[in-house]
Amino acid sequence: MKIAIAQLNYHIGNFEGNLKKMLQAVEEAKIKGADMIVFGELSTCGYPPRDFLEFDDFISKSEASIQELLKASKNIAIVVGSPTRNPVIEGKDLYNSALFLYDEKIQHTQHKALLPTYDIFDEYRYFEPATEFNVVEFKGKKIALTVCEDIWNVGNENPLYVTCPLDELQGQNPDFVVNLSASPFNYRHANTRIHVLKANVERYGLPMFYVNHSGAQTEVIFDGGSLVISPDGNIFDELPYFKELVKVYDLDEVNKGGVHRVQPKDKIALIHDAIVTGIKDYFGKLGFKKAILGLSGGIDSAVTAALAARALGPENVLNVLMPSEFSSGHSVSDAEQLAQNFGMPYKIIPIKNIYDSFMGALSPHFEGRPFNVTEENLQARSRGVILMGLSNKFGHILLNTSNKSEMAVGYGTLYGDMCGGLSVIGDVYKMDVYALARYINKDGELIPENTIVKPPSAELRPGQKDSDSLPDYEILDEVLFEYIENCQGPKEIIAKGFDEKLVARVLRLVNINEFKRYQTAPVLRVSSKAFGMGRRMPIVGKYLS
Amino acid sequence: MKIAIAQLNYHIGNFEGNLKKMLQAVEEAKIKGADMIVFGELSTCGYPPRDFLEFDDFISKSEASIQELLKASKNIAIVVGSPTRNPVIEGKDLYNSALFLYDEKIQHTQHKALLPTYDIFDEYRYFEPATEFNVVEFKGKKIALTVCEDIWNVGNENPLYVTCPLDELQGQNPDFVVNLSASPFNYRHANTRIHVLKANVERYGLPMFYVNHSGAQTEVIFDGGSLVISPDGNIFDELPYFKELVKVYDLDEVNKGGVHRVQPKDKIALIHDAIVTGIKDYFGKLGFKKAILGLSGGIDSAVTAALAARALGPENVLNVLMPSEFSSGHSVSDAEQLAQNFGMPYKIIPIKNIYDSFMGALSPHFEGRPFNVTEENLQARSRGVILMGLSNKFGHILLNTSNKSEMAVGYGTLYGDMCGGLSVIGDVYKMDVYALARYINKDGELIPENTIVKPPSAELRPGQKDSDSLPDYEILDEVLFEYIENCQGPKEIIAKGFDEKLVARVLRLVNINEFKRYQTAPVLRVSSKAFGMGRRMPIVGKYLS
Repeated sequence: MKIAIAQLNYHIGNFEGNLKKMLQAVEEAKIKGADMIVFGELSTCGYPPRDFLEFDDFISKSEASIQELLKASKNIAIVVGSPTRNPVIEGKDLYNSALFLYDEKIQHTQHKALLPTYDIFDEYRYFEPATEFNVVEFKGKKIALTVCEDIWNVGNENPLYVTCPLDELQGQNPDFVVNLSASPFNYRHANTRIHVLKANVERYGLPMFYVNHSGAQTEVIFDGGSLVISPDGNIFDELPYFKELVKVYDLDEVNKGGVHRVQPKDKIALIHDAIVTGIKDYFGKLGFKKAILGLSGGIDSAVTAALAARALGPENVLNVLMPSEFSSGHSVSDAEQLAQNFGMPYKIIPIKNIYDSFMGALSPHFEGRPFNVTEENLQARSRGVILMGLSNKFGHILLNTSNKSEMAVGYGTLYGDMCGGLSVIGDVYKMDVYALARYINKDGELIPENTIVKPPSAELRPGQKDSDSLPDYEILDEVLFEYIENCQGPKEIIAKGFDEKLVARVLRLVNINEFKRYQTAPVLRVSSKAFGMGRRMPIVGKYLS
Repeated sequence: MKIAIAQLNYHIGNFEGNLKKMLQAVEEAKIKGADMIVFGELSTCGYPPRDFLEFDDFISKSEASIQELLKASKNIAIVVGSPTRNPVIEGKDLYNSALFLYDEKIQHTQHKALLPTYDIFDEYRYFEPATEFNVVEFKGKKIALTVCEDIWNVGNENPLYVTCPLDELQGQNPDFVVNLSASPFNYRHANTRIHVLKANVERYGLPMFYVNHSGAQTEVIFDGGSLVISPDGNIFDELPYFKELVKVYDLDEVNKGGVHRVQPKDKIALIHDAIVTGIKDYFGKLGFKKAILGLSGGIDSAVTAALAARALGPENVLNVLMPSEFSSGHSVSDAEQLAQNFGMPYKIIPIKNIYDSFMGALSPHFEGRPFNVTEENLQARSRGVILMGLSNKFGHILLNTSNKSEMAVGYGTLYGDMCGGLSVIGDVYKMDVYALARYINKDGELIPENTIVKPPSAELRPGQKDSDSLPDYEILDEVLFEYIENCQGPKEIIAKGFDEKLVARVLRLVNINEFKRYQTAPVLRVSSKAFGMGRRMPIVGKYLS
């Protein structure tokens, strides 16, 4: 039996586009002699569809796609993910299902049992969990269909769940396992995924065909990396990351095993490719081509611009240099050099007159109070308005350049440097932004060396340095990682050897700046815990603040 | 037996403050001769605690509060809501529980079974549902403890759930039902709540003591309105809305019944009081006293200012009038009149010089393109920066003045008039904003009549009116209500008699402006479906766009 895996980049709610893509993949698989083709989870509608699922019309459109796919299932079995209706009144209205189409009939439907409801996932908001599990028979083989999370509770050892679908299916003696996934990228996920799949193979001794999405849906990035695992536990194949493709496997070959293919999983390289994918799909799926951003001469905007140039083409990234009286000479020259190195267009628009006009209007009302963060913010906001003006006039999307460390502690100006339609590096800690810069420069200096080595500064007052008001990023990033990614409280973090006062200060800064993050752009998610939908914190909460 | 209801305003994560409040209520109940006192759901930590629940330290702090309450339980039973740990490895780590404390011991713990996971609710994200149900015996009475949603599946008729806790408890012959709630306000909720409670009484024939929170947590507002229902189905008492209080009831009196007390439930009056509560608690719980807002002479900012004046005191609301060349003469005079009527301070800061400085910097880069939305947005953003400058200098919180109709269709400028720390009327459709204005004026003209009767305009270009680019608000609001609150698709809305093209256009506008709403302030929630956490839509989604 020949099994095709279709690792595709879907678009949420774009039923027509997704269907066309799937029908093309079916044709390709037929030509390559496949007996069946497997798509990803909720492939008719894209993932995550969120509250679109609450519209009856949305579900009907997904059903219409299934009807079209049925017509194409005459000589090939099609395994597709779709929301289906729960006919029973009690419980949620929908199931998250894998449908097995063949000979123009829905031969089998297997609902998902384990509904992730943590981090960015809200599946229990929409779906009723499966309670029945059955294999499907096809050309003399018994197939265990599973949907994503259903294979993540191996032998019931995942503390989140109380059932294990493959334990239920085992008694029916399946010949192989198919898994339809929509499993989002983080820089550790490819390894975790392989670990989980191997644990399943070890327990059941069955070959597995794991099909993931590729491409990004706003902040959620799918890396592909679909897997075929042999019963001997070897990786028979791992599909490339961040690419769409259809590939056909002979079940006998897979069963033989003895082949082990691996792809490199370097953290920084993966983050780089994930962000490039994220930018590309955000623009492509919204129908935009051009980006604009403010280039300060600092590391964050330099890395953002470089990633945008790779995603959209350098000619489509407009850089705006907006020096003030506090900008150092090298700021402009470093920024110019960067734009030239990549071949990106740039403009220089000084903000002095604008800043002066704000101060002219406001200072009579400031009651003689001294220069403080207000005037710093006025500069950042003058720049934000300039960028949005150009963005509006020419239809460019403004890219936000804030990194995760500064977003965490609120070191940024709301409606100023926190402007932008998409946060490019908002899930990358400052030390990793440096690593990204080095990675971008691995074949030659694209980001000027001076941008990388100079002490970070917002340049909003004379001689300002980040280190005046923040701990060193080496330490700050570690404390933030413990608090944000690892959910460790102050006691646990201090126990790891960090200074008590520093920990209290950093955690307080994170918590009292929730109101700023609430109003920022969606953040391309590359870690296991990004700001946004995956981290839901009260604003008026008094905890550790 | 005498039962005290404590309808309190908790503060998320403020364990010390919540505990102090509860201990004071215990003292008050003791003085009033109560045998037991009942607090709200998750009263130790406040509701909704969201991802704070993922911190072990947060749960420990809640357990510490229980220890303190135990010490106070020598002569009075205390029924308190708290997260508790699930000792079993499988399943979620926590339960959402009602604890019955007496004689310095936890006599009984009843976990919540029905975990709301829709709209703003994410309970399945954190909690394992209860599977065991037992009454607690106290002074010869059997008490059925329930937590909030547990009484909302009367006889298993709620399609969201498959169990009915009171059906389970009925066999143990309880004498009365206690319900610990944190049930957020919407303008229909008080009626719905009474309907559900009466349905329970009708089914089980038992008196019910329903205890709700009062006060607001960022966008989520609790109206109180705690209820005591007699076995005859009459409302023995309904506690006041938006107020904290402790009240004691004699069980025998409640059982006698024959008394029926009702409070008025006028939609606009409720919305008015809810928003005033929301503003007051947002400021109070964050430790702020003063608000600032831009007053345009239009209805939205006028109503926002009026509500803020009632919440914070007029002397604490700074109004800024920022006329441009497109502002009509009456804009300034109407706004001045409003500020004077309420006794609120105001400043006039024209934006001409600032706008000119932006145009001076930008027009050389605009390549001769004509005046369009870019220049309109520059005016709105100039105003946003002025307001934020004053906000930063004096520590005021900026109030956002956008209404729900314009937020829905994207009729507002990101980083301009969409600025602000809190959206005051962002869940109020335009027609209801007018109704609110009339309600505020019911005892005399506070909001100038001209502000109410003139055609709405953003005044960003000569002679601009909202009706140039939007359908009449009477129609727009109805279409939006069907789409947003009722989740109706285009077919269903058209079937109600609305024009096909208009419906397609409005729904498209709502969907393509998701990116703007993603970046706006939390919206005080007064309807059953507000923008924000309760409505989760993809940004790159291609559905109806």
